[in-house]
Amino acid sequence: MNEHIVIIGGGFGGLYAASRLKNAPVEVTLIDRRNHHLFQPLLYQVATGTLSPADIATPLRSLLKGQRNARVLLGEVIGFDVANKQVILRDGAVSYDKLIVAAGSGKNYFGNDAWMEKALGLKTIEDATEIRRRILMAFEAAERTTDPDKLRAWLTFVVIGGGPTGVEMAGALAEIAHETLKDEFRSINPSDARIILVQSGSRILPTYPPELSAKAVAALEQMGVEVLTGRRVTDVQERGVILISDDGEEHIAARTILWTAGVQASPLGKSLAKATGAEVDRGGRVIVEPDLSVPGHPDIFVIGDLGHYAHQTGEPLPGVAQVAIQQGRYVADLIKRQLAGRRVLPFRYKDRGSLATIGRGKAIADLGRVRLTGWLAWEIWLYIHLMYQIDVENRVLVFVQWFWNFVTRRRSALLITDRDQQVTAPQAQAGLKLITTTGTFRHVPETSSKVQ
Amino acid sequence: MNEHIVIIGGGFGGLYAASRLKNAPVEVTLIDRRNHHLFQPLLYQVATGTLSPADIATPLRSLLKGQRNARVLLGEVIGFDVANKQVILRDGAVSYDKLIVAAGSGKNYFGNDAWMEKALGLKTIEDATEIRRRILMAFEAAERTTDPDKLRAWLTFVVIGGGPTGVEMAGALAEIAHETLKDEFRSINPSDARIILVQSGSRILPTYPPELSAKAVAALEQMGVEVLTGRRVTDVQERGVILISDDGEEHIAARTILWTAGVQASPLGKSLAKATGAEVDRGGRVIVEPDLSVPGHPDIFVIGDLGHYAHQTGEPLPGVAQVAIQQGRYVADLIKRQLAGRRVLPFRYKDRGSLATIGRGKAIADLGRVRLTGWLAWEIWLYIHLMYQIDVENRVLVFVQWFWNFVTRRRSALLITDRDQQVTAPQAQAGLKLITTTGTFRHVPETSSKVQ
Repeated sequence: MNEHIVIIGGGFGGLYAASRLKNAPVEVTLIDRRNHHLFQPLLYQVATGTLSPADIATPLRSLLKGQRNARVLLGEVIGFDVANKQVILRDGAVSYDKLIVAAGSGKNYFGNDAWMEKALGLKTIEDATEIRRRILMAFEAAERTTDPDKLRAWLTFVVIGGGPTGVEMAGALAEIAHETLKDEFRSINPSDARIILVQSGSRILPTYPPELSAKAVAALEQMGVEVLTGRRVTDVQERGVILISDDGEEHIAARTILWTAGVQASPLGKSLAKATGAEVDRGGRVIVEPDLSVPGHPDIFVIGDLGHYAHQTGEPLPGVAQVAIQQGRYVADLIKRQLAGRRVLPFRYKDRGSLATIGRGKAIADLGRVRLTGWLAWEIWLYIHLMYQIDVENRVLVFVQWFWNFVTRRRSALLITDRDQQVTAPQAQAGLKLITTTGTFRHVPETSSKVQ
Repeated sequence: MNEHIVIIGGGFGGLYAASRLKNAPVEVTLIDRRNHHLFQPLLYQVATGTLSPADIATPLRSLLKGQRNARVLLGEVIGFDVANKQVILRDGAVSYDKLIVAAGSGKNYFGNDAWMEKALGLKTIEDATEIRRRILMAFEAAERTTDPDKLRAWLTFVVIGGGPTGVEMAGALAEIAHETLKDEFRSINPSDARIILVQSGSRILPTYPPELSAKAVAALEQMGVEVLTGRRVTDVQERGVILISDDGEEHIAARTILWTAGVQASPLGKSLAKATGAEVDRGGRVIVEPDLSVPGHPDIFVIGDLGHYAHQTGEPLPGVAQVAIQQGRYVADLIKRQLAGRRVLPFRYKDRGSLATIGRGKAIADLGRVRLTGWLAWEIWLYIHLMYQIDVENRVLVFVQWFWNFVTRRRSALLITDRDQQVTAPQAQAGLKLITTTGTFRHVPETSSKVQ
């Protein structure tokens, strides 16, 4: 009977490993809690209303339907029984011959889990549609408030974290406020919105060369984003954030706070470490061998965001799609080579460069010796992000929507949806009254309304 | 100061009324609980994974941004103060000179509201994504069960209601089971799914000529749908439905039950009737004058699904988009004519025909003297539904997705999303264990699993 390869996680690492095993003499089971692969790099475009969830998510079954040696199992892994070579699910167990753990990462609030409800992170489709809802509801609430302080707080958006996701979110928010929502409101001017990007370190995009960080700041400021560096967040409240810097403490009144400051490895990293005796780093990532296996367990591999691989540079590799993809392919090849009795070399990461987009026609690219900004970088960014979409239909749809967005400066997916269907709740919470507008519209404030 | 026209509801009626008032010397306020106009006729395509929510929904603000005399108010209307000419919102009130109530309709369970959780209706985007989730989770649960009775129940889909929505849902479900999900599962064959369409009357599509109903039945049966007519639902349970017919009672074990059997006018119809002394019919619709005004209140109009207009044929007009659109335009024109001191004629509905689609290349069209079925009817259906999309970008996107779907027989939007992120819950509820599959995959049943 063929070896049974179990893969946990249908992200970049898990999916590329599974497909690379297509013609190998093995059986593959891919386990995920979600039924879809998510193209994470574009998730912020769902949060900011350019794309729809289905444009960046593809059902795993559909991706693997043509691969007869692979099956998909929708289920939640809760532990490992390495002695019996089993993965424990919430409702059963699966035996493996070889195990690839690619469970990825979640949001990290650095121990301040109470901030989670107030400062939204961006990891799942549900996160993205909730962020979209909150951004739009903030403008709706601003349109209806008469209190200038409340208005200011509703129109202030704080993005915490100056990495690529934070930069992209801040840029997209600026475009929404200054371009997309132009002329859509009658009492407020969405352009009055303040968008603030907060970075604890001395510069944004710290993994890029300093000159590109500076160019990104210039581009963001030109778009109306305030970039605050050297500020650490000490508290996140319902009505704002408290920042601390060398100059002391400051409070920013804001009703919409987005969190892109940190990622935390999946808790499965710790479970696996406990089961195998492996070590995890401070971020919860499992420290792996040069062949990505867990020390002492040559049949268990950890790839992608969940792995800590420092054999190449001394530093762990970054949690980006390219690392996960290359590691997924490497482990699949390793398994095939082992089966064929061939020699296995250690994993080597080939850095193909990094790209971040800031807005329409604005991006930065660090391609090793070549560093680009502006239009050309943006065009490369578009091309790469289209080509890495796994699904051809999504590639076409994303292209159509980007093209439309570019030409019309519009965003078609600015929907407020909610399972509870309580769209007015945030307004009611805020104690808003219907306003008497100046000008031609006559409204009556709440105090004078009567139900007959 | 210009007259203030308040419109409640951003569906077809309200939106067409608002835009028709574009150059009139009035101020328009459009009030809706949701921030988007929804293209209801295609909602079932979201429920069955062909389209994304944003493809058929467009933000109201974006639709009216170019109309300087119109504003959008996101809010929930809870009553009327006609003496003071005010609409009462949950958090305030709005004065009007003229009021157009276009609040539409919701689901009607004919007094059996307990069925609501078990038999899902289709009225909002949230309904559609929840139906999509339940359909997909049923196949996932079937893939994992070993009990043949449970398997059968998970693979049985009952659609209650043989109107256009029920027919379209049943047809789309058949396509999902027989084409879309082909080869995606390893333990089950999705083609084994039973899709049952239940109609209380003697034939489906009762508003169409009998010959078209018969053609629709033939098309559905060819696609593998079982059409049961003359069966009334007497109970909806977690595990199935009970039907009664002249032959007695029958129980169908099914885990997925969809409800398209009835609509109920918005409760605002009754509120308005109470406030104005108007009468409502059994469906909660307000009985209106020949000019669509409320008797005794020439400044209040009811249009679309919420209105009962029987002056033309003796029967109330059907709750379809065409009626709402024509009524919205009529009332806008009436207001403009009154302002210009011109004569007003009663409303006349011009029936442009009805269309229903059954599946790929299958539709029926009743265009008065001309009755069509098959390809030509389907092409007309496609054309009309594209042209009536209010938003040009959505028109392009829907076209691309339909084209893709047609060529590849795939559906790209088959996502399971959930705010609670508890995707495994339905399986756990069903008490499923992980199965030991026959064949090459080795799994261990729950009873033998241990967490070390």
